[in-house]
Amino acid sequence: MNIMTLETVSLDENENALLILDQTKLPNTVNILHLKDIRGIWNAIKTLQVRGAPAIGIAAAFGLYLAALQSRANDYPSFMAGLKDARDFLNSARPTAVNLSWALNRVYRVAETHRDKSINEITELLRLEALAIKAEDTETCRRIGEYGLTLIHDGDGILTHCNAGQLATSKYGTALAPIHLGREKGMNFHVYCDETRPLLQGARLSAFELIADGVDTTLICDNMSSQVMKEGRVSAVFVGCDRLAANGDACNKIGTSGLAVMAKYYGVPFYVFCPASTIDMTIHTGAEIVIEQRSPDEITEMWYSKRMAPDGVKVYNPAFDVTDNSLITGIVTEYGIARPPFVESLKEIFTTKESANTPNP
Amino acid sequence: MNIMTLETVSLDENENALLILDQTKLPNTVNILHLKDIRGIWNAIKTLQVRGAPAIGIAAAFGLYLAALQSRANDYPSFMAGLKDARDFLNSARPTAVNLSWALNRVYRVAETHRDKSINEITELLRLEALAIKAEDTETCRRIGEYGLTLIHDGDGILTHCNAGQLATSKYGTALAPIHLGREKGMNFHVYCDETRPLLQGARLSAFELIADGVDTTLICDNMSSQVMKEGRVSAVFVGCDRLAANGDACNKIGTSGLAVMAKYYGVPFYVFCPASTIDMTIHTGAEIVIEQRSPDEITEMWYSKRMAPDGVKVYNPAFDVTDNSLITGIVTEYGIARPPFVESLKEIFTTKESANTPNP
Repeated sequence: MNIMTLETVSLDENENALLILDQTKLPNTVNILHLKDIRGIWNAIKTLQVRGAPAIGIAAAFGLYLAALQSRANDYPSFMAGLKDARDFLNSARPTAVNLSWALNRVYRVAETHRDKSINEITELLRLEALAIKAEDTETCRRIGEYGLTLIHDGDGILTHCNAGQLATSKYGTALAPIHLGREKGMNFHVYCDETRPLLQGARLSAFELIADGVDTTLICDNMSSQVMKEGRVSAVFVGCDRLAANGDACNKIGTSGLAVMAKYYGVPFYVFCPASTIDMTIHTGAEIVIEQRSPDEITEMWYSKRMAPDGVKVYNPAFDVTDNSLITGIVTEYGIARPPFVESLKEIFTTKESANTPNP
Repeated sequence: MNIMTLETVSLDENENALLILDQTKLPNTVNILHLKDIRGIWNAIKTLQVRGAPAIGIAAAFGLYLAALQSRANDYPSFMAGLKDARDFLNSARPTAVNLSWALNRVYRVAETHRDKSINEITELLRLEALAIKAEDTETCRRIGEYGLTLIHDGDGILTHCNAGQLATSKYGTALAPIHLGREKGMNFHVYCDETRPLLQGARLSAFELIADGVDTTLICDNMSSQVMKEGRVSAVFVGCDRLAANGDACNKIGTSGLAVMAKYYGVPFYVFCPASTIDMTIHTGAEIVIEQRSPDEITEMWYSKRMAPDGVKVYNPAFDVTDNSLITGIVTEYGIARPPFVESLKEIFTTKESANTPNP
């Protein structure tokens, strides 16, 4: 099993079906979904068989191409009516995912722009646009990985949290991009994965994709990271980011802020990895970010063979936390590594991104 | 259900059986074991139906009394031979538990001292000695609780880790003693329990005994404590201790040291609770303490309905960590609260304990 053969989302060789690595079956079973119609793709996004903002966007983009491929319309207006329905349907799978609507609209606009072409020609252009979205994401991740590799040395120990890896993107991932890219270059790292309660993305997903790529991988419980740092087992902490404020405050999976506090205490550099599209210039500080609260069942019952908490206990289950920018050593993007003071360095990266005129996210 | 009716270890009213609250069935089932022979008590200690050093010692002490009660010996030498066999058998249930051999030897010595008395009289003295061990433990915990109560105010939020509670002792516990004692005095606290992976003592045991005592209790994953402190939900962190070095370095359940680092960062006072017998004057610093490594299965499979990590992943599973004394606000014992510099304050407490000539541990 090699990660090169385990693509998160890809078009099959006949170009009439989408292949999705079913993440709900990991880490026990490698099951590749073969999806030809958009109902199956909608369902895969809805049920988290595919997850991670970039991967969801890519799956939906291919979905819109497959909807065009299966269209029985004989004229442009009815073709577009069907395409619009497909777009809106796919977009409803996870209404709050920015990448989902962004990717769907980007593919849909290609069909709008090329009204002079035949339906077959337009369909082919949609396929190329979906492939472009995927290729751009791979390139973004590859560049993030290149910058990340400048921060570590062959043989280093790295601690990571949750899954900011290949399984959340088209390839490489963000926080795990240096590790996978390093593997391509013949380098070896030793990665410690926090299991990441309650959803266990570290145990189920990060450990899986790292093992599949032949990386020396050690699983720990979240409460063991202090001991791992104290013993000098890691030379850096690499985490992803869901939303980055203009001042560098980073919203990411619950537990990230505690890791950052410990890393500061033990003198371990703490790096946040994300595409520049994650920078939200309209948010000045992390205090403006509202943290999603999730169901108590995730902590008391999920995964277990029986309930593991007494009746009557309250449960506090924030899905994210915000890491204060003062705890962050650097923020690694496809345009370079932002260093403190982040208000200035992130503005520079954001400006570079805007002037590069690359599509968003 | 009230904690007053849920004793960890007690003699039944006919004084011919030991009642043990089966902790392996918690939190789902409250099952009281009714054990009349030492084989059942040995098994209860071995399989962790009763756990926590003081509780194990008390159970074994009562076990030796029950062995005497059931003796068919007609003379002192054969009575003592049977008692010695029972002592050695019970002591083999968990060979490394200091309290176990200590309690057994203390009860056994009573029989040695009173060779002039009848077997019935000696048996009664063994019962009284076991009851004394239990009563002394309760008194130790009560005094720890009294000192602990001086650190908090009615209505405060408290964060705790693992189970240093009533279920590990005869009553009150150590870190949870102020909470239970406060309840007796009509006070209310809001306790946040780290679930404490991988063995979930926080979710299964601390949350259970707190709920049973009517305490407002909230369960969190270990990686949520940073967010809980950041939001100002707790005014102190209370943890237990398995072994305390002469300089105040505290060995306790894995995750304790990370909590201490976060508490320092967020300005939350961090208190360690333990009987003075936990102070090991022969250990100068925490660096001398060897940390037990436990089975990978506890992280990858235990409690789950299926394995939650990929094949081929390594697992690092230290059972304890050492919290540096510089992170500890105070150490609460039955002889008072030690404050920095701990080398001096702990020596004072240790001397008080020795001069009080109280039995050990």
